Amino acid sequence: MKSFASDNYAGVLPEVMEALAKANSQHVRSYGADDITKRVVARFKEVFDADVDVYFVFNGTGANLLSISSATHSYNSILCADTSHIYNDESSAPETFTGCRFFPLKANDHGKLDIETISERLIRKGDVHYAQTAMLSITQATEYGTVYKPEEIKAISELTKEHGLYLHMDGSRFFNAVASLKCGLNDISGKAGVDILSLGGTKAGMMYGEAVVVFNKELSKHIGYKHKQIIQLASKTRFIAAQFEAMLQDELWRKTATHANKMAELLCQSLTPNRKIKITKPVQANALFAEIPRNWYEPLQEHSPFYVWKDSTHEVRFMCAWDTKEEEISNFVKAIEALP
Amino acid sequence: MKSFASDNYAGVLPEVMEALAKANSQHVRSYGADDITKRVVARFKEVFDADVDVYFVFNGTGANLLSISSATHSYNSILCADTSHIYNDESSAPETFTGCRFFPLKANDHGKLDIETISERLIRKGDVHYAQTAMLSITQATEYGTVYKPEEIKAISELTKEHGLYLHMDGSRFFNAVASLKCGLNDISGKAGVDILSLGGTKAGMMYGEAVVVFNKELSKHIGYKHKQIIQLASKTRFIAAQFEAMLQDELWRKTATHANKMAELLCQSLTPNRKIKITKPVQANALFAEIPRNWYEPLQEHSPFYVWKDSTHEVRFMCAWDTKEEEISNFVKAIEALP
Amino acid sequence: MKSFASDNYAGVLPEVMEALAKANSQHVRSYGADDITKRVVARFKEVFDADVDVYFVFNGTGANLLSISSATHSYNSILCADTSHIYNDESSAPETFTGCRFFPLKANDHGKLDIETISERLIRKGDVHYAQTAMLSITQATEYGTVYKPEEIKAISELTKEHGLYLHMDGSRFFNAVASLKCGLNDISGKAGVDILSLGGTKAGMMYGEAVVVFNKELSKHIGYKHKQIIQLASKTRFIAAQFEAMLQDELWRKTATHANKMAELLCQSLTPNRKIKITKPVQANALFAEIPRNWYEPLQEHSPFYVWKDSTHEVRFMCAWDTKEEEISNFVKAIEALP
Amino acid sequence: MKSFASDNYAGVLPEVMEALAKANSQHVRSYGADDITKRVVARFKEVFDADVDVYFVFNGTGANLLSISSATHSYNSILCADTSHIYNDESSAPETFTGCRFFPLKANDHGKLDIETISERLIRKGDVHYAQTAMLSITQATEYGTVYKPEEIKAISELTKEHGLYLHMDGSRFFNAVASLKCGLNDISGKAGVDILSLGGTKAGMMYGEAVVVFNKELSKHIGYKHKQIIQLASKTRFIAAQFEAMLQDELWRKTATHANKMAELLCQSLTPNRKIKITKPVQANALFAEIPRNWYEPLQEHSPFYVWKDSTHEVRFMCAWDTKEEEISNFVKAIEALP
Repeated sequence: MKSFASDNYAGVLPEVMEALAKANSQHVRSYGADDITKRVVARFKEVFDADVDVYFVFNGTGANLLSISSATHSYNSILCADTSHIYNDESSAPETFTGCRFFPLKANDHGKLDIETISERLIRKGDVHYAQTAMLSITQATEYGTVYKPEEIKAISELTKEHGLYLHMDGSRFFNAVASLKCGLNDISGKAGVDILSLGGTKAGMMYGEAVVVFNKELSKHIGYKHKQIIQLASKTRFIAAQFEAMLQDELWRKTATHANKMAELLCQSLTPNRKIKITKPVQANALFAEIPRNWYEPLQEHSPFYVWKDSTHEVRFMCAWDTKEEEISNFVKAIEALP
Repeated sequence: MKSFASDNYAGVLPEVMEALAKANSQHVRSYGADDITKRVVARFKEVFDADVDVYFVFNGTGANLLSISSATHSYNSILCADTSHIYNDESSAPETFTGCRFFPLKANDHGKLDIETISERLIRKGDVHYAQTAMLSITQATEYGTVYKPEEIKAISELTKEHGLYLHMDGSRFFNAVASLKCGLNDISGKAGVDILSLGGTKAGMMYGEAVVVFNKELSKHIGYKHKQIIQLASKTRFIAAQFEAMLQDELWRKTATHANKMAELLCQSLTPNRKIKITKPVQANALFAEIPRNWYEPLQEHSPFYVWKDSTHEVRFMCAWDTKEEEISNFVKAIEALP
Repeated sequence: MKSFASDNYAGVLPEVMEALAKANSQHVRSYGADDITKRVVARFKEVFDADVDVYFVFNGTGANLLSISSATHSYNSILCADTSHIYNDESSAPETFTGCRFFPLKANDHGKLDIETISERLIRKGDVHYAQTAMLSITQATEYGTVYKPEEIKAISELTKEHGLYLHMDGSRFFNAVASLKCGLNDISGKAGVDILSLGGTKAGMMYGEAVVVFNKELSKHIGYKHKQIIQLASKTRFIAAQFEAMLQDELWRKTATHANKMAELLCQSLTPNRKIKITKPVQANALFAEIPRNWYEPLQEHSPFYVWKDSTHEVRFMCAWDTKEEEISNFVKAIEALP
Repeated sequence: MKSFASDNYAGVLPEVMEALAKANSQHVRSYGADDITKRVVARFKEVFDADVDVYFVFNGTGANLLSISSATHSYNSILCADTSHIYNDESSAPETFTGCRFFPLKANDHGKLDIETISERLIRKGDVHYAQTAMLSITQATEYGTVYKPEEIKAISELTKEHGLYLHMDGSRFFNAVASLKCGLNDISGKAGVDILSLGGTKAGMMYGEAVVVFNKELSKHIGYKHKQIIQLASKTRFIAAQFEAMLQDELWRKTATHANKMAELLCQSLTPNRKIKITKPVQANALFAEIPRNWYEPLQEHSPFYVWKDSTHEVRFMCAWDTKEEEISNFVKAIEALP
């Protein structure tokens, strides 16, 4: 099966598999005290060109909640887009682990948060009856497959700093965003004012594992303890670290993310002429959103699974991965054209 | 480095590495809806000879807390040994995630819980001022490297049933226990009255991943939701399932666990004649506990790391793994004999 | 000072003070095992004409959270109006105590939830990635001083039942609603399909204390334990019970609530002719909402405090209490007319 | 009924009732912003002769958990006596609200914590696998009716400071302790190194209400927000403040606590000659602990309820209150002497 449902349907990059094999050589200290982990953390400092702290975790929800819990008390609230993964697809784990309130902000048509929208919710500071807002979480690339530009992030960051909020970036598809912008890793994270980043590995082609990257040292005080408490400290941490080492080697992530983005762009171009299809979002990363006839659902899902985003308007999401092939795109386009 | 510090210092079994490579072939559904996961769950039913439910998780704390949270409300308490991992080495994750009180029971000299000790704490049922006891958690093999016999577990299980408690088994070294007893997987779990089992994979030679095995269907109602909420549902679940498949193939787990146990026994026999060393616990699984002269700590740690269990009595733990070699044991023994 | 800021600025009804004095006669059992408490619980069954369970608590947030936690697991979500007290004015206590997600639904212009609005959020049942919706919470009288009619509640209740949700009513001003509708206590609670009710005492003229009234026996299983766990079980419970006894005696609550409602109506009528004022919500209970000139804030607050509801439109809330006097209304109206 | 079961079976001091009536005069600001509350907070500063912060709460568990949550993160642990109320009688509220682990320390025969016992548990600082100990909680007067001397508290306080722990005092019977020691309020709290105090009002003769008194300003940062979040901020706070004002007026608390203590002493002296009774703890506050024949339970409970402390040794607790009369003591003693 080749699917357009999610980039987490894909397998593991061959370079990552090799790195896992190579890391499997002997006894090493557990829980991240090993040399591989130390080496890869040092590598993060180089590629981010910043004195970051790095915590390896198992999955994306773990990365998000470690990031958020390192910056909040239980009487706090967090602002996030109403379209965000953390608001829609992580059960009540955010509340259960942090004790905090999560306030949804209406994302704009491109799935981003506008300055005005954020500003309107920066309210009631010091009012004990209101869960005090401590953090804003944005997603890069967004759930709509769009990408915040560096200056957009900077503007948001300045607003959050003015109001004493921390800025979190859910970067489960961060590599796709950087590849799309053709910039450096830090240009849309630390340098743009992000305090803490959930850096996605799994969807980028790893087997499992994400990294929490801390730019703001104020957030370093508790995070080591939270890392364990939140059930995200792997005993054999070396195997997560080694996967990231492979991703960072010669910017493998850029190659693969650029490819996935390109495949989404190709799919977009191939489908645009089709008058039964309406492309609904700009393609800036590895996703294509489109409204399609409802009677296509079944035959098309059988050909290649995809995700129904909004059933009321027949809007669906086609997601490309590191291993999506041009041929698969053209086959899929042909299958679509053959639909009645 | 070859270490006797912990079985989680060891790497991954070659058969498991092969299984990972083999599972990495194409797109499959995420979050456990794939065919590999389904196949391996079916395999669990066979090898346990029971209609068990199976949930794959990332790590041991995840397995323990998923097990416990599936059986408790936040006003409950859980009984566990004062020596248990869940009481000593999982930070406050048990409380944070379940909201429950954990009452420690004094383990006997062999690290087990006696019927009398448990009975004394079965108190205040129906008293709203007291966190109502809902579960007992025992560890198999214990933190002292000893093993509950089937009849011991049955006796404990009968007591818990009488009092309306669920019985949880923390089996991070469950395979070592089964290998030690030369019995079947179910003989000391479901058939012995265990309601839910944390089945360890990582220490047994996997890269990551454990399984929660549910014998009592009463616990199946909420566990699927808790699985996600507790941040333990892997998007690429197939890679945990595939590792377990390799472990179960021709009882690979028995071969490797038997070997680790044998190495601990060999170390015990080799050190017993040494009059400076006092073996403190019976060797029934893959650990050896011994009191050694304090001035040995430093030179011996340099040779091969080990864990100081109780500094006040100079009691240390030597842990063997699936990859411990006879030669490493004899080298270690020689190093010990060379100490002043 | 006489204030229109909130009904919790008012003191205690003389009948309630007398009841407190009378209850203070001798030693009685603590934690609600006393005869006064038992007698008043029996009285609740009479006045509600139903076999209700009753739990006395300290305050409104306590009543709401006891109600909600008795019906939910930590992986659940609760639907509530975006205008509701539980969403805006209880800090993150709802999340911290229940672990659940609270989803806000857009209230209509009258502060009520429409069937359509609720229906749209009854989604993703059985999807482990989504906090499973277990309850709907509505407020009666609403935060806008409006009142759900019995048939409106029944329609909502039928919808919740169809979808397996429990229906909670935040009745911090429940007596005002019943008085407004000139119906019986049960007509807009149990008989209308409410499963559990937070019945307000403090704002109605008690010193402290609210009651959780359980209509649906399914919710009785855990609530006794939750009552203590949520820090809401008073040792000297008799003094809360005695206050409610006074409130229920000869329907004292109806007399006082009718009076408060009437005062709000009088204020409304007196201000309606003033062309600088725009009444914004129908007056159905004891609150009046109006847009006033912004330069009135300061002089008017000095005369009698009130609450600015929505600064952007200069909408303010004037709240009447059991002790608001006609003369105070007319003085206030005169003060308003004297404003430039 | 006159009971020796608990001081919370008693009613309310007449002076407190008067103060409640007096406070019930007009509209005042809610949630503690009123003048009565401000006045009483200022009064606390005087009587404690220190710049304390004061937070009024509903009940003892609320006071304890507000105190603890103001000083802890969810990855922390708290040390407390295995006999303490917080460990035995507050359900799992401590864990649910704080997320922390509570480690029990063995109390000595007098119900106090020894320096050695505390020292042994000051372990594993900086170890992420262990819930980091942040606070020690002691009870004054203890659950055994004994009283820590100022120098004992100072010694404990010094130990906690050395190890970076905060010291909490559960003072639900704090007035009895001060009365017993004939010292000032601050001599066994702030001046002795206590960081935060749960000051009991209810058992001392109030209707409801306790105060959290903060000596260490480091704990002031979050406590205002926690106060609301923990459901302990009363809308009509004036009525708690007014009760405390009455208690503090001319040291009413000392008069009543001294009386209760004296009654316990009288009961002790009266029962000491009885050879069937063994007094088990020194009488230093308002409780008497004694072993009595088991067949006395029933007839004696019928005469005046008391509390069975430890059924295995027939140890019972007789508790005196502010309203216990000499005559009641002598009647009770006579009833005992009449027992077979």
